[in-house]
Amino acid sequence: MELDRSKGTRDFLPEEQIVRQEIVDKLKTVFELYGYSPVETPILERYDVLSSKYAGGSEILKETFKLQDQGGRELGLRYDLTVPFARIIGMNPQLKMPFKRYHVGEVFRDGPMGLGRYRQFTQCDVDIVGAKEMTAEAELVLLAFRVFESLGIKVVIKVNNRKLLNDLLTKYKIKKHDEVILCVDKLEKIGIKGVKKELEDKGVSEEQIDELLETISISGTNKEKVSKLRQIIESPGLDEIEKVIELCSEVSFEPSLARGLSYYTGTVIEVYLKKSKVTSAICAGGRYDNMIGEFLGKGDFPAVGISFGLDRIYDAFIENDKTSAKTVTQVFVIPIQTFEESLKIAEHLRNSGFKVEIDLAGKGPSKNLQYANSLGIPFVIFVGGEEVKAGKVKLKDMKSGEEKLVSVAEAIKLLK
Amino acid sequence: MELDRSKGTRDFLPEEQIVRQEIVDKLKTVFELYGYSPVETPILERYDVLSSKYAGGSEILKETFKLQDQGGRELGLRYDLTVPFARIIGMNPQLKMPFKRYHVGEVFRDGPMGLGRYRQFTQCDVDIVGAKEMTAEAELVLLAFRVFESLGIKVVIKVNNRKLLNDLLTKYKIKKHDEVILCVDKLEKIGIKGVKKELEDKGVSEEQIDELLETISISGTNKEKVSKLRQIIESPGLDEIEKVIELCSEVSFEPSLARGLSYYTGTVIEVYLKKSKVTSAICAGGRYDNMIGEFLGKGDFPAVGISFGLDRIYDAFIENDKTSAKTVTQVFVIPIQTFEESLKIAEHLRNSGFKVEIDLAGKGPSKNLQYANSLGIPFVIFVGGEEVKAGKVKLKDMKSGEEKLVSVAEAIKLLK
Repeated sequence: MELDRSKGTRDFLPEEQIVRQEIVDKLKTVFELYGYSPVETPILERYDVLSSKYAGGSEILKETFKLQDQGGRELGLRYDLTVPFARIIGMNPQLKMPFKRYHVGEVFRDGPMGLGRYRQFTQCDVDIVGAKEMTAEAELVLLAFRVFESLGIKVVIKVNNRKLLNDLLTKYKIKKHDEVILCVDKLEKIGIKGVKKELEDKGVSEEQIDELLETISISGTNKEKVSKLRQIIESPGLDEIEKVIELCSEVSFEPSLARGLSYYTGTVIEVYLKKSKVTSAICAGGRYDNMIGEFLGKGDFPAVGISFGLDRIYDAFIENDKTSAKTVTQVFVIPIQTFEESLKIAEHLRNSGFKVEIDLAGKGPSKNLQYANSLGIPFVIFVGGEEVKAGKVKLKDMKSGEEKLVSVAEAIKLLK
Repeated sequence: MELDRSKGTRDFLPEEQIVRQEIVDKLKTVFELYGYSPVETPILERYDVLSSKYAGGSEILKETFKLQDQGGRELGLRYDLTVPFARIIGMNPQLKMPFKRYHVGEVFRDGPMGLGRYRQFTQCDVDIVGAKEMTAEAELVLLAFRVFESLGIKVVIKVNNRKLLNDLLTKYKIKKHDEVILCVDKLEKIGIKGVKKELEDKGVSEEQIDELLETISISGTNKEKVSKLRQIIESPGLDEIEKVIELCSEVSFEPSLARGLSYYTGTVIEVYLKKSKVTSAICAGGRYDNMIGEFLGKGDFPAVGISFGLDRIYDAFIENDKTSAKTVTQVFVIPIQTFEESLKIAEHLRNSGFKVEIDLAGKGPSKNLQYANSLGIPFVIFVGGEEVKAGKVKLKDMKSGEEKLVSVAEAIKLLK
């Protein structure tokens, strides 16, 4: 046996996992402030559900982990949280619309490895189904602003509208909308020259390219951009964008924003860091009014959602705060031949909500101090026989090195 | 495409998931109070790791979901959290001992379905490695008591010791210790008669069976049981049990407690509900001093751990409190042609920490009331044009039906 992980997967030891959990907790708190409720679906899905024509598409299916159960049933590991979401909408007609849910879960892609690409990763999705008004995307933008505010991460939230992009392409007589939008989506990544070349390869003329790129590169405030575009084109996409801007003044309207996925039907949203090494979007989404209905083969399910990538948010989060703890422990209790009394003191501290570890092995004080120090535990309490008699403990601040002889009640006050 | 889940898996809609999440949060809080830090390992593991001789064993391997990645590597879905724990201990020699971690995660078993048996389920494991003293099991027993106290679930925690059982079997000249212990483990399930029959089938004589069953059925207080057993046998297991009892007076020493898994080497622990329909253990564990070292083929890694079964705890938890919410939302804001003002009020309430939903679709008040009512949202706020001018909102208590015209600040006070 080779002692290793499976390729493309990671272990998260406390140093990393404590922070990841803190981020997820903050996300969940904000999701719930907006009335989104938690849902959990299985990691194993039927392969026919995952491979349905209106599910993730053929590109993603190539990267789907496939397996069989003992009964020979074809299964797959979910590659996103949207297809399972569509499935539960279809299987639970009793759900009241609009239905607002969040889901933090693992997804799997058996694809080529690369910088920041893993075969198992965590998605944090927020979706609302059954709401066709632009108020829904406004809510998600406000939610995203609050998420990043609570994380102390400065972001720019960019929005655009697929209807606008499609209407522009029609106006300039450019065909193959989905493919062209996929190219435009790479503007940030490969620059204007790169996009021009790709579009030329797709048979779009130089004139068409110049018209398109000039139009989607207009500058100004949100309102200025809208009014400039109104002079070029009439599009319901512009009306939609206007409503979103009206409700979320902090958002930035970027007519060049595209997003790769073909199922978007209206608003698209991307969140970028203001100052950071991380240059790709750390959160993205949009409106997909047709996908669920087409997937289910019935019904009208207008939907909007955004997805937060835990890995990228983690990278951005630790850029601000480099010190990460190796343990959750706040107080380390060191018994000096007083285990039973020390255990009572530890339990007392836990009753007050402190995260307390106690030496279980009966090691000497200096070894225990070394252990507490190497884990970065901020406080240590020594419980010696003399101290116990006097009803006292010795509280040590590991940063300053300061020691105080105090009662347990006093120690609790000081720790607070 | 058939719209269904894969066999043996479940979806958790808000009604269930809100409670499941509440339970997991309470578990994590208590785990951290005892200084256990979170760890996460991948769901996909190398098959050679999962199938190692010293891992889960051949029975469990029969139920392991097996798959390949595109590179043809043999993988499996983890069937427990203990084997991955052993792996990270082996791969991270920098970890300070004792290493205390918890892990809440999904595990997978491709086995026959039955009452309460699923192919994907959640385990909540707490383990300490590198501590050979009985203080470690005492800590886990205290932790378990605190977990169930925080959940409002009344339990009995039973302990026994494998060394004691093995020494008794040796004394009565009974062979095949592991197989016999597996039989004894079924005492609660199949009764004395059933166990007798199984043991006879294994070639244990009637006399041996009677001696064994008589000894492990002794009654009395913990101390009485220890002293009665001391007259029958001298075993290091008895000394160990005595230490655990000394540190946790509330625990119940049950000499007949066995636990099925063969890797336990000392203390075994099981937690039962005091009054409930759920009759199997809802939490169990014990000491496994050799497993990690044997798995890694090196080193000495004494370890103790317990595992909390989320499904059974959920069943016990909802027995107490039948009312479960369909949404996290606490306040539903109904704009009456005042969306922008209403949104500001909703954001204001969110700033104060309330979980707030706002009507996004512009439905009429009665449809909105119906929606809020069907989800069991406790409070509704109407924001009409008149109210906005007067700086007021109408707060409705959905239970009592009472309505009050108040300022937003007053509403916040009342809601608190």
